[in-house]
Amino acid sequence: MTRPDGRTPDQLRPFTFERDFTTMADGSCLVSFGDTRVLCTASVDDDVPRWMRNSGKGWVTAEYSMLPGSSPERIGREAAKGKQSGRTVEIQRLIGRSLRAACDMTLLGERQVVVDCDVLQADGGTRTASICGGFIALHDALSRVVQRGDLARHPLHSFCSAISVGIVGGEPVLDLPYVEDSKAEVDMNVVMLSPVDGGEARFVEVQGTAEGMAFSRGELDSLLALAESGLAEIGAAQRELVATPPAERPA
Amino acid sequence: MTRPDGRTPDQLRPFTFERDFTTMADGSCLVSFGDTRVLCTASVDDDVPRWMRNSGKGWVTAEYSMLPGSSPERIGREAAKGKQSGRTVEIQRLIGRSLRAACDMTLLGERQVVVDCDVLQADGGTRTASICGGFIALHDALSRVVQRGDLARHPLHSFCSAISVGIVGGEPVLDLPYVEDSKAEVDMNVVMLSPVDGGEARFVEVQGTAEGMAFSRGELDSLLALAESGLAEIGAAQRELVATPPAERPA
Amino acid sequence: MTRPDGRTPDQLRPFTFERDFTTMADGSCLVSFGDTRVLCTASVDDDVPRWMRNSGKGWVTAEYSMLPGSSPERIGREAAKGKQSGRTVEIQRLIGRSLRAACDMTLLGERQVVVDCDVLQADGGTRTASICGGFIALHDALSRVVQRGDLARHPLHSFCSAISVGIVGGEPVLDLPYVEDSKAEVDMNVVMLSPVDGGEARFVEVQGTAEGMAFSRGELDSLLALAESGLAEIGAAQRELVATPPAERPA
Amino acid sequence: MTRPDGRTPDQLRPFTFERDFTTMADGSCLVSFGDTRVLCTASVDDDVPRWMRNSGKGWVTAEYSMLPGSSPERIGREAAKGKQSGRTVEIQRLIGRSLRAACDMTLLGERQVVVDCDVLQADGGTRTASICGGFIALHDALSRVVQRGDLARHPLHSFCSAISVGIVGGEPVLDLPYVEDSKAEVDMNVVMLSPVDGGEARFVEVQGTAEGMAFSRGELDSLLALAESGLAEIGAAQRELVATPPAERPA
Amino acid sequence: MTRPDGRTPDQLRPFTFERDFTTMADGSCLVSFGDTRVLCTASVDDDVPRWMRNSGKGWVTAEYSMLPGSSPERIGREAAKGKQSGRTVEIQRLIGRSLRAACDMTLLGERQVVVDCDVLQADGGTRTASICGGFIALHDALSRVVQRGDLARHPLHSFCSAISVGIVGGEPVLDLPYVEDSKAEVDMNVVMLSPVDGGEARFVEVQGTAEGMAFSRGELDSLLALAESGLAEIGAAQRELVATPPAERPA
Amino acid sequence: MTRPDGRTPDQLRPFTFERDFTTMADGSCLVSFGDTRVLCTASVDDDVPRWMRNSGKGWVTAEYSMLPGSSPERIGREAAKGKQSGRTVEIQRLIGRSLRAACDMTLLGERQVVVDCDVLQADGGTRTASICGGFIALHDALSRVVQRGDLARHPLHSFCSAISVGIVGGEPVLDLPYVEDSKAEVDMNVVMLSPVDGGEARFVEVQGTAEGMAFSRGELDSLLALAESGLAEIGAAQRELVATPPAERPA
Repeated sequence: MTRPDGRTPDQLRPFTFERDFTTMADGSCLVSFGDTRVLCTASVDDDVPRWMRNSGKGWVTAEYSMLPGSSPERIGREAAKGKQSGRTVEIQRLIGRSLRAACDMTLLGERQVVVDCDVLQADGGTRTASICGGFIALHDALSRVVQRGDLARHPLHSFCSAISVGIVGGEPVLDLPYVEDSKAEVDMNVVMLSPVDGGEARFVEVQGTAEGMAFSRGELDSLLALAESGLAEIGAAQRELVATPPAERPA
Repeated sequence: MTRPDGRTPDQLRPFTFERDFTTMADGSCLVSFGDTRVLCTASVDDDVPRWMRNSGKGWVTAEYSMLPGSSPERIGREAAKGKQSGRTVEIQRLIGRSLRAACDMTLLGERQVVVDCDVLQADGGTRTASICGGFIALHDALSRVVQRGDLARHPLHSFCSAISVGIVGGEPVLDLPYVEDSKAEVDMNVVMLSPVDGGEARFVEVQGTAEGMAFSRGELDSLLALAESGLAEIGAAQRELVATPPAERPA
Repeated sequence: MTRPDGRTPDQLRPFTFERDFTTMADGSCLVSFGDTRVLCTASVDDDVPRWMRNSGKGWVTAEYSMLPGSSPERIGREAAKGKQSGRTVEIQRLIGRSLRAACDMTLLGERQVVVDCDVLQADGGTRTASICGGFIALHDALSRVVQRGDLARHPLHSFCSAISVGIVGGEPVLDLPYVEDSKAEVDMNVVMLSPVDGGEARFVEVQGTAEGMAFSRGELDSLLALAESGLAEIGAAQRELVATPPAERPA
Repeated sequence: MTRPDGRTPDQLRPFTFERDFTTMADGSCLVSFGDTRVLCTASVDDDVPRWMRNSGKGWVTAEYSMLPGSSPERIGREAAKGKQSGRTVEIQRLIGRSLRAACDMTLLGERQVVVDCDVLQADGGTRTASICGGFIALHDALSRVVQRGDLARHPLHSFCSAISVGIVGGEPVLDLPYVEDSKAEVDMNVVMLSPVDGGEARFVEVQGTAEGMAFSRGELDSLLALAESGLAEIGAAQRELVATPPAERPA
Repeated sequence: MTRPDGRTPDQLRPFTFERDFTTMADGSCLVSFGDTRVLCTASVDDDVPRWMRNSGKGWVTAEYSMLPGSSPERIGREAAKGKQSGRTVEIQRLIGRSLRAACDMTLLGERQVVVDCDVLQADGGTRTASICGGFIALHDALSRVVQRGDLARHPLHSFCSAISVGIVGGEPVLDLPYVEDSKAEVDMNVVMLSPVDGGEARFVEVQGTAEGMAFSRGELDSLLALAESGLAEIGAAQRELVATPPAERPA
Repeated sequence: MTRPDGRTPDQLRPFTFERDFTTMADGSCLVSFGDTRVLCTASVDDDVPRWMRNSGKGWVTAEYSMLPGSSPERIGREAAKGKQSGRTVEIQRLIGRSLRAACDMTLLGERQVVVDCDVLQADGGTRTASICGGFIALHDALSRVVQRGDLARHPLHSFCSAISVGIVGGEPVLDLPYVEDSKAEVDMNVVMLSPVDGGEARFVEVQGTAEGMAFSRGELDSLLALAESGLAEIGAAQRELVATPPAERPA
C-alpha cells in the first residue's frame, strides 16, 4: 500500500514548531504537521478560578477553535452561532487534561494558564498538533515566569506529546492527514508524557474509536506500537527545542 | 486489598435490566449496576435528519442527562442553565457512536431512533450503564418495528455493551462505583460489540485517561483484559434477555 | 356518559406514592395517577438564594421536566434546545408556589429545598401529580432534617394536594387522563391545603381555562365541588402515609 | 376600610381606551386603568405559523413586555438578558389564550394576528389591562381587514375583558393598584367573554393564587362576584367604543 | 426637487419634546420628529457597575429598542429571539457615547443613569431622535437629583443633539423620513455638543455611510453644513425647554 | 511632538500583505500594520442567503474576531461566552459594508463571499487592517473564480482601503497604534474606494468619535486630509499587488 503522500505507514509528516510566532501572550507557538497549522498561545493569569482559591495550587486549561477559513468548506463561526460544538468541547477538554498531566500544580502555585489553540489550517490531526504545540507555548510561558523571578522552579515535570494513529484500508498507519482520516476504519489519539528528568514515557490518554469496523485486540496493539514510536520522535524534538530558553522579556 | 463493597477486582456489581419500565416509547429499559440506575428509552421516528434524506439509510443517536436529584449533592438542571455541560456532550456522543456501531443503517432504512438515557440515581459508571441499557431499549424498539411489519429484518447485527475499568490504589479493578472512581489514578471506559450470529467480540471504543499518574503499556494491558472479561458476562446477559421478544403492541 | 376508562365522573384514577424510590436526595417519591408517573425528589441545601440571606427565612422552589421518552411522540429535550418552554416555566412556578404555601418559612430557617419533578410517563395531570408527590418528597426530606436534629419542628403546617377537573362533552369530570384532557372544553387545576392539625381545607390555586367554550358560573361551581371531593381523598392518603416517618439515614 | 385611593371595594379605577395612539400597526390602543398604561398594537400577517398551513384557520397570539422605565425601580430589559422571564411568558400566554377565545378562527381564515402589549407605566393590573386594550387593537385591526374587503365578516364573536380582584386586609376588593397588590393575601385574575350578539357573559380564565393565606370557598365566591360586576362595566365600554368603526386607511 | 413632505432640503420636520410623559422613572420625554416617536426614560441608580466602584465617577448608558408594532411590517421582539440585533447594539452604543460626552462624570459621582429609548413609532431618524429626547430625560432626571439635594451641581456641561443628513437623488437633505432614508445614496448621523455656558458647538460623532455611491469631499462638506444648521435649531429648543425646571417630586 | 515609535504625524506604520498565507480558502491574506496582524480569508459559496435567492445578485459579508492570545491581557473567547460583543458586531458590520461597496453585485451573480478577519496580534487599527487585508483576500478569491471560468468579469470595481486617524495630545495623527489609540481625544476610521479603472477616490465610511473632547470643524478637516493621504498610499500598494494574479488552483 502506498499512502497518498508517499509516506511509509510508520512515518510522521514533516513537523515544525515556530516559537514566538506572536508576541503578546507569554508563550506562543505555531505548530505544523504537514498542512495542519495551529497557533497556540499560553496566557498566564496570577489568579485561579474561584473554586481553587486558597488551595495553594494552580490550574491549566485549554480552548480550541477552528478558524472559519481553515478548511476548504468554510466552517461556521461558533461565536456567531452562540455555542461551541460538541466536537470542540471534547477536543479542548482533551487538550486541557493532557497538559495538566504534565504540570506540578503545587509548583505552579495559585496561577492559571490558558492555552488557546486556534487552527489556522486543518488537514487532520488538529487536536494532537494542538497538544504538541500547546505544550511548547505553555513551557515557554512558564519559563518566562521563572525568568522574571516569580517562580523558583519550572512546574512542568514531563514533556507532553500526542499523535493520531488509525486503520486505513485494513492497515495501521501513523499521523493521518484528512484524506486518510476521512476513510479510516479506526481512529485513535494517543497522548504520552515523557519525564523531563528521563525515565519511561507513559500514557495519559488513549482514545480509540471504530468508525466502520470494530477492532481486535491485536489491531489495538499494533496501533499503540505505532503511536509509541511516533511520540518518541516528537518528544525528542520538543526536548531539543526547549533546551534553548525563550527570549527574555521585560516584566 | 478489599474493595469498599467487598467485590474482587474482576467482579461486576449486580446488574439488572428491567424491560418496559415505561410504556410510551417504543423501547424502554431501567438498567441498574449496583446503585446506578438509568432509565433508557428508544423512540423511533419515521424520518431522518435533513442531511440524511434520500440516502436510503437510517440514524441512531443518543441523549444523556442526570436528574437533579440523582446525586447526594443536587445537580443543576441543564435546561435551566440553558446549555449542556461538556461532560454531557462527551457522554452522549460516546453512547450514540457505540450504538450506531451495532446497527446496519441500510437495513434500518430512513428512520431515526433517539435513545434517551436519564440517570435516576448515580453511583459511578452511568455512561457505560447507559450503553448497556440503551442497547436493550433500542433492540426492543426495533423488534417492535419488525413485529408490526415495517422492517423485514432486525437491523442490529451485534450486541453492544460497555464497562468501566480503572487503577485504584495501584490495582486494576472492574466496574468502579463512585467511591472508587473519585480516587482512581486511571479511568477507562471500554465498549465492545459481540456479533448476533456469534464470532469474536471486538472493540468499538477505548477511552482511557490518567487522572493522577500516567500508565504503562503493561497496566493498559491489564485493564483491557479486565474489561474484556466483564463485557463477556454482560453481553451474555443481553443475549439471553432479548432471546424473549418484547410484548407486542398495537400499531 | 361512560368515561374511556370506565370511571364515574367523580372518581379518581388509582393513585400511589412510592417513597424513597431513589435514595440520593433527602426525600424521593415516585407518584402515579393511572399511567402518569412522576419522580419527585427534594434536595435540602443549607443555604438560601442571595436575596434571602440574613432574612432568617427559608425557601422552597420546584423544577419540572418531562423526560423525552415519557410520551408516545418523543418530546425534544429542553437542555438540548437551550431553553425551557413557556409551559414548563408555568408549571414549575405553580408547583413552587403551591408547596411554599404549605411551609412555615421561619420554622424552615435559612435553608432552601428544591423539589424536582421529572415526568417518567405522561398521561394527563402531570402538574397536579407533581404537587401531590412533590409534597411527599418535601415532607420526608424535612422529616430527615428533623431526625438528624437540625430542625426543632417540622416546618410544613399543611398537607398540599392538587387535582385536575374539566368539562368533557358537556359533563364535569374529575382527574382527566390525556384522552379526555385533549378534548376538554374546560380544563381546571385546583390546589388545596389541609392543615396538619386539622381544620378546613382551603384553596391556594385555582386555574381554570376554557379551551373551546366559555363556562358559566354554575359550571365553575360544579368543577370546584368535584375538585374538593377528590382532594379530600388524596389529602387523606398523604396524611396516612406520612404518619409513618421515613427511614432514618446517617447524617 | 378605606382604600388608598378612596375607592369603594367594588369600584374600578378610571379607565380609558385611546384608539390609534400609533398608526403603523393595523390596530393600536393606549389603554389606561389609573396609572397603569399599556400600548397595545395588533399586526395582521397574511400567513400563519407553519403548523397551521392548509388548515383553513387563523391564529391570534400575544406578546407582553414592560418597558424598563415603566416602574420606579428600573426593570432589566429582557432583550439584553437574552431571555424572557417566567412571569412574562405566563402573562403573554394568558393574553393570547383569552383573545383567541373571542375569535372565530375559521372566519379569520389563514391569517395571523400578533397583539403586542408594551407596558409604558405599571401600577398593578398590567395583564388585565393588556387584555382589555389588546381586544380593542385586535378588533380595530380586523375591522380594517373587513373595510378593505379582505374579510367578509368580522371574526370576533365576543367582547373580551379582564380584571383583577383580591383579598387585602381580609376584604375582597376590585381592580388592585400596586400598593394593594403587593400586600394582598389572595390575587385573582378573571377573564370573561360577552357575546357580540348579546347573551350571558361567561368565564374563559380564572386564575387565583393565595399569596399568604389560603382562601375558603366563600371568599372565592365573593371575589368572583366582584369580578363579574367590574367586567360588566368594562365590557359595556368596549361595546360602546367599537360601535364607531375605526378610521379607514388606504390598503 | 421637491421632498415628499414638501420641505426644503435644509428644513427639519416639526419636532416636539413631551416632558414627563410617564412618571415612574426620574426623567421621561416623549420626543417626536414628524411621525417618529420615541419614549425616553432616565433611571438613576445610586450604584455603578462593579468595574467603576471606588473611582469616584459615575456612568451614563443607554438602551434602545423598537416596539414590534412601531413599523408597518411588525418587527420581531428581540426578547423573544433571545438576542439583540447588530443594528440595536450599534445604535445603543452610539446613544450612550453621545450622552456620556455631555456629562461631567466626576460631578455625577458614583451613580449610574440608564437612558432607555423605546421607539413607539418609526419613520426614520429614530437614533437621532433618541439622542435628542434622551438628553431631555437625562437632564430632568439629574435636575431632580439636584432638587432633592443629592447633587450640588448639575453634571451636564453641554446640550447634546443629533440629526441625520443624507444624499437623496444626488441632493444633500436634512432630517430624512423613512421614504427618503430607504433610497438615500449616503446616510450620515451627526451628533454635536453645545456648552451650557455658551461657546461653540462641536462634534462628538460623525457617522457617514455610502449606501450605493461613494461620496466626495465636497459632498461631505455639504452634509456637515446641513447638519450644523439643523442641530443649532434643535439645541436652541432644548436650551429653552430645560430653562424651566421639571416638576419637583417627593424623594 | 514625537510619536512613541518615532513616526511623523502623517506617516503610516510599515505595512505588508502576505498573500495565500493559508491555502484552504479561495483567498487568504495575512496583513500587518506595525505589530497588528490579521489573517483574512475569503470563502466563496455558490449560494446566497435565502432572502436573496432569485435576485440575480450576490452578497459579500464579513466576520471579525480577536484570538484570545492576540492581546497582552487575554481576551475571553466569544464562542465560550456564547455571544459576540457589541464591539465585534459593530466592526464586522463596518468591514462587510465597506467591502460590499467595492463590488458589483450583479456581476458577482448569485454567490456569497464570506470574508473572515481573525486578529492574530492586536496593536491598534485592527478594523482598518481587516478591511485592507480582507480586500486582498476577496480580490484573490474572485480572481480564482474568474480563472476557473465561473465568472466572465471580475466583480470588484474599486480598491477598498481603510485607516484610522485621531487627535492625540491635541495633534492630528495618522494610523494610531494601541499606545496612542488608548489616550486619543478623537478617534476616526475612514474607508475609501479607488476605482479600478482610475478616477477620484471617494469616501464610503467616515466614523469619528470624540473620546474626551468634542472636535471642531477645522479639526475634522485636518483628520480627513491625513486619512486621504494615507489611503492613497495603501491603495497604491493594493493596486500593485493584485496586478500580479494569484497562483491558479485546480477547480
